[in-house]
Amino acid sequence: MLKRYLFAPGPTPVPPEVLLAMAKPVIHHRAPEFAQLFGEVREDLKWLFQTRNDVLILAASGTGGMEGSVANFLSPGERALVVNGGKFGERWGKICKTFGVQVTELKVEWGQSVDPQAVADALKKDPSIKAVYVQASETSTGVAHDVKRLAEATKAREGTILVVDAITALGVFDIKTDVWGLDVVVTGSQKALMLPPGLAFVSVSEKAWQMADKAKNGAFYFNFKKERESQIKNQTAYTPAVSMILGLQEVLRMLKAEGLDAVFARQARLAHAMREGVRAAGLSLFAKQSPSDALTAIAAPEGVDGQAIYKNLRVHYGITAAGGQDHLKGKIFRVSHMGYMDTFDVITALAAIEMVVKGLGYPMKLGSGVAKAQELLMVGAEASGSRR
Amino acid sequence: MLKRYLFAPGPTPVPPEVLLAMAKPVIHHRAPEFAQLFGEVREDLKWLFQTRNDVLILAASGTGGMEGSVANFLSPGERALVVNGGKFGERWGKICKTFGVQVTELKVEWGQSVDPQAVADALKKDPSIKAVYVQASETSTGVAHDVKRLAEATKAREGTILVVDAITALGVFDIKTDVWGLDVVVTGSQKALMLPPGLAFVSVSEKAWQMADKAKNGAFYFNFKKERESQIKNQTAYTPAVSMILGLQEVLRMLKAEGLDAVFARQARLAHAMREGVRAAGLSLFAKQSPSDALTAIAAPEGVDGQAIYKNLRVHYGITAAGGQDHLKGKIFRVSHMGYMDTFDVITALAAIEMVVKGLGYPMKLGSGVAKAQELLMVGAEASGSRR
Repeated sequence: MLKRYLFAPGPTPVPPEVLLAMAKPVIHHRAPEFAQLFGEVREDLKWLFQTRNDVLILAASGTGGMEGSVANFLSPGERALVVNGGKFGERWGKICKTFGVQVTELKVEWGQSVDPQAVADALKKDPSIKAVYVQASETSTGVAHDVKRLAEATKAREGTILVVDAITALGVFDIKTDVWGLDVVVTGSQKALMLPPGLAFVSVSEKAWQMADKAKNGAFYFNFKKERESQIKNQTAYTPAVSMILGLQEVLRMLKAEGLDAVFARQARLAHAMREGVRAAGLSLFAKQSPSDALTAIAAPEGVDGQAIYKNLRVHYGITAAGGQDHLKGKIFRVSHMGYMDTFDVITALAAIEMVVKGLGYPMKLGSGVAKAQELLMVGAEASGSRR
Repeated sequence: MLKRYLFAPGPTPVPPEVLLAMAKPVIHHRAPEFAQLFGEVREDLKWLFQTRNDVLILAASGTGGMEGSVANFLSPGERALVVNGGKFGERWGKICKTFGVQVTELKVEWGQSVDPQAVADALKKDPSIKAVYVQASETSTGVAHDVKRLAEATKAREGTILVVDAITALGVFDIKTDVWGLDVVVTGSQKALMLPPGLAFVSVSEKAWQMADKAKNGAFYFNFKKERESQIKNQTAYTPAVSMILGLQEVLRMLKAEGLDAVFARQARLAHAMREGVRAAGLSLFAKQSPSDALTAIAAPEGVDGQAIYKNLRVHYGITAAGGQDHLKGKIFRVSHMGYMDTFDVITALAAIEMVVKGLGYPMKLGSGVAKAQELLMVGAEASGSRR
């Protein structure tokens, strides 16, 4: 008997309340009950996205939201700046190419965060750049890019939008869409939103909608303007993923009950405990700077194959984490702590990592990382009875 | 956000597969599908109980099975020997008194296991004793009684049955009902059977049925003879708890897939790691001998209130364990590891205990108990890939 644990950077664990909500009878998507449900989640998504703009809900995974965020705003031959600091930065480039968008790629070493000055410089150098594509959290390396600083360069510039893949960021750490001036923000359901895969969400600023009016790329399913027209009437252009939206309603209620600041504080606390636990266990973080609070990328120690760590976590302990991608395969493994996670998830992950790494012959003091996480996540006696 | 963890000695965690099975549409209990379901679980229960006798299924909690195991076999004025080494031994005495049964009580100090010789001596001294009532695992103290040895004294004796409360024993450690000669064995659904509370199970030997023929106590709902007549036809005398039986079907399939020896080995491994982890953390076990593999009773350390430990586990960490009962209140706390439990449940429990005890001001080296459990529960690298 092996219990299964999801520590992959998506899909993440789904709370039982949400699974139950998704097991409710299917509502017809043209019935009035659906419009009421859809209206509620649309409002709550604006709260989560910290925006007054529309947040489109799409039956797709995050990549669908990314595709739409290229196809709807740029025309073939137009120019975009793509920050490529990992697998998902690379994906922005591939999508742009598919839609005939000319890409200026700003390569960032994997494990590093983009220098906002480099983005500002690239924009200055080329006035024809119409959009900047970036990750708020690069899932392949566990690094966060400072999208607030990047927005400083795009906000004042007419006709250039900042498009943020916040798929492993939104709901993990603070993303002030309107205050910072993020024009397009994309996320998916199976990360901090604690749902199964199947929904993408995209917030779109007025500046971006104006670009959409002129863009000439083909978009049928991911036609944001058409979706907006339907969604402001609490309908969808095409059949929505109804059960997922019932789950979303429950997720948003849970997040609102906890409060956005409390969610960010919990995610930060768990991420900090994970990173310090990894260090206390004698392992190194892969991120050289700005580690994302969504997941921790850990360097495989000298002489140990990172893929063996990833595989043994699954085979011996029922834990699904993630390995490294491309040239990082075998060099790193990744553990998520975003979404429906608490103290004992971090302790479970650290205990399992210690056991697997030791099992692979690397000298490892069992309990060393766990003890650090316990210390950081401990609730003092003075709080006794206060959190009933 | 506080996740909830069940570490009480019942109810224990229910596997998702079982929750799903219980969510199936309700079958009518007089329909042929029910008879088929009931026939399947009756056969599988014999396998679990290691018996060729009938195993009755009752819509009741374990105490209902205990009541029936007094009322159906003894008449008012008849004599029983009750082994009382804790709260549940005491309960046998209370039930006997309710049904006018004369009780000879064999008191056993809480935390101790009964001396089988003392039982044999008590039986020799009083030939009128018709039944011996005992726990296989005394949940209030975390101690196992050696029911195999006790059966040696009752097996050869005509007209005396051994009645075993195996509520926190069956499915945890080996109980060879027929081979050892246990006449009546009682268990409940919410322990090692990984179901919610609501079902009791009682196996009855031929020797016990013969006593039931002569017994003159009133039993209407818990009338075992009447139930037997129905249940051999895959029916029940009164309305059965249908959804619970759908869950039971899934539980029995899971247990059969794992195998009885593998289940016992897992439970023993987890119990051992828990006990050694507790010791390594500098705490003491309450059981002076024969600790039950179902749960571990831990002595509150010098100067720390056991009830505060129990309470802080719940309030600070979302963990429901159990405190001490009666004179043990404040002196001990109890943590279950029976049923749907694995490596990381033991690690979670130990980590939380360390944090709570330290939080209450007791000197505790965080990670010390966890490290011992990790060491004992580790899967070596040599096994890599072999348990795919």
